[in-house]
Amino acid sequence: MPRLLILSSDPDAYYKLIRSAALPELEFVTDPSECDMVFGEPRLIREVMPNLSKAKWIQSMFAGVEVLMDPSFRRDYTLTNARGVFGELMSEYVFGYILAHEKKIFERRLAQIARKYDRFESGVLRGKTLGLLGVGSIGSHLAGTAKHFGMTVHGFTQSSETNKDVDVYYHGDEILKFAAGLDYLVCVLPRTKATDQIVDANLLDALPSHAVLLNVGRGNAVDESALEAALKNGTIAGAILDVTAKEPLPEDHPFWTTPNLLLTFHTSAISYPIDITRLFIENYSLYIEGRPLKYQVDFEKGY
Amino acid sequence: MPRLLILSSDPDAYYKLIRSAALPELEFVTDPSECDMVFGEPRLIREVMPNLSKAKWIQSMFAGVEVLMDPSFRRDYTLTNARGVFGELMSEYVFGYILAHEKKIFERRLAQIARKYDRFESGVLRGKTLGLLGVGSIGSHLAGTAKHFGMTVHGFTQSSETNKDVDVYYHGDEILKFAAGLDYLVCVLPRTKATDQIVDANLLDALPSHAVLLNVGRGNAVDESALEAALKNGTIAGAILDVTAKEPLPEDHPFWTTPNLLLTFHTSAISYPIDITRLFIENYSLYIEGRPLKYQVDFEKGY
Repeated sequence: MPRLLILSSDPDAYYKLIRSAALPELEFVTDPSECDMVFGEPRLIREVMPNLSKAKWIQSMFAGVEVLMDPSFRRDYTLTNARGVFGELMSEYVFGYILAHEKKIFERRLAQIARKYDRFESGVLRGKTLGLLGVGSIGSHLAGTAKHFGMTVHGFTQSSETNKDVDVYYHGDEILKFAAGLDYLVCVLPRTKATDQIVDANLLDALPSHAVLLNVGRGNAVDESALEAALKNGTIAGAILDVTAKEPLPEDHPFWTTPNLLLTFHTSAISYPIDITRLFIENYSLYIEGRPLKYQVDFEKGY
Repeated sequence: MPRLLILSSDPDAYYKLIRSAALPELEFVTDPSECDMVFGEPRLIREVMPNLSKAKWIQSMFAGVEVLMDPSFRRDYTLTNARGVFGELMSEYVFGYILAHEKKIFERRLAQIARKYDRFESGVLRGKTLGLLGVGSIGSHLAGTAKHFGMTVHGFTQSSETNKDVDVYYHGDEILKFAAGLDYLVCVLPRTKATDQIVDANLLDALPSHAVLLNVGRGNAVDESALEAALKNGTIAGAILDVTAKEPLPEDHPFWTTPNLLLTFHTSAISYPIDITRLFIENYSLYIEGRPLKYQVDFEKGY
């Protein structure tokens, strides 16, 4: 009988959802050393990692699992993460902010406060180009929404090239060429060594001056000093950062007051228990049948 | 040889686009009494209406043609308006503001200004219900975008019921029932006698208290005193008004400072010459072939 350990800041929600699914054979345990499988938040899993001696499968409740990549940790188990459930939430966030920029909703609010009936023109998404730095399941969903709004989609990727909503793919040393044609650059990268400061001064310089950067992946992808300078110098028009290198953002960080920079405090796509439990149940069914699990993390790549 | 009068605040853009299309037989004239057809803005057409004695066809550059409905004006000609080109622009505007509300982008901006790393939760569009007051070509496009974001769509309409993206239709005396189930009510109605103050105190009372009203149709549809009271009393959560009964909004109007009310000064969907000229050219081809024109206005209905 498989013994499951749940590690969440809101464990009751998950117990309730899993109980109501009446999964065959499943037993809940609370001692890490006794469990065969873990369903939890990466940081909580990390804390008990040395005691998870019997665990054969760990299902992360989040997408980002970099805290489990420590080389001192076991890798002789199957790690699966949350995937495929964040695409629609990320689309809501990304297009909410992109449309807010095009429709100048902050400027219109200021006009209202100043009692000015000022009909300055809105921008239009249709015909503009969205660049995806990372074209996984989230990037693919963003591409679909961009197409719904009549945009052109460019993708920079190391691997998969299967998305029909991406009009042009760029690779390897083409990153500056990729950047040059964009109105919006959306970074959807996981935290790995390969993504460290990929958005650097050169990339920011290569973007058109009206371009806007959005980072909904991980903070490590952005050279924060370079971004601060780019926004102060008008190298690019704006940035919307859901993630930063340090979270919470330190009180004395220049981003609090960098011009044309919006912070959203890692709220773009929270993990809803009902979505994440659906993934767990799907994988549990495969697990008890002895079949390969979905959403497996590659320890070499780190995602 | 058909003689065309162009009446626009930016006539050169239209002359240039039409010339570049090299339409057969077309001649430009500037004297209203000499033209066979007019391509223009409704208010400018209205000014010369008494002199348009020979005009057989008038193509409006805008969607709203209520200023041409004066009973003293001729109706023995074909009036066509701009249709089918505003749907995507309206979707950008409506979903920009709906997403701004869900993602709390004004509140997050205030948190940043206060240097508070405050991770209060965003709302989610997925699963919410959008109500369309009016399901013409704009409403249909909005329905499609709502479906893209996983919303349920309810429509209140007098006539057409052909849109597969509308999940439930309501009619006639069902308007309060229609309102009761909505998270967002989007008014996309033309100005007619039948739409006067359709959004009244009863309708606002019928909406859930978390609901948000958007008006992208015409200002006559809203009882403005009732809306002011509803927002002050918390009967509904917010309103985004692109249109108002009087435009520009009078300087002493309470809407400038009504809580949770955003004004956008009739900018939601401007007429782009390239879109509108495409409609004119399409209809011109039908006109010279003697076939029925598209986008005809029904003088009885007023749209």
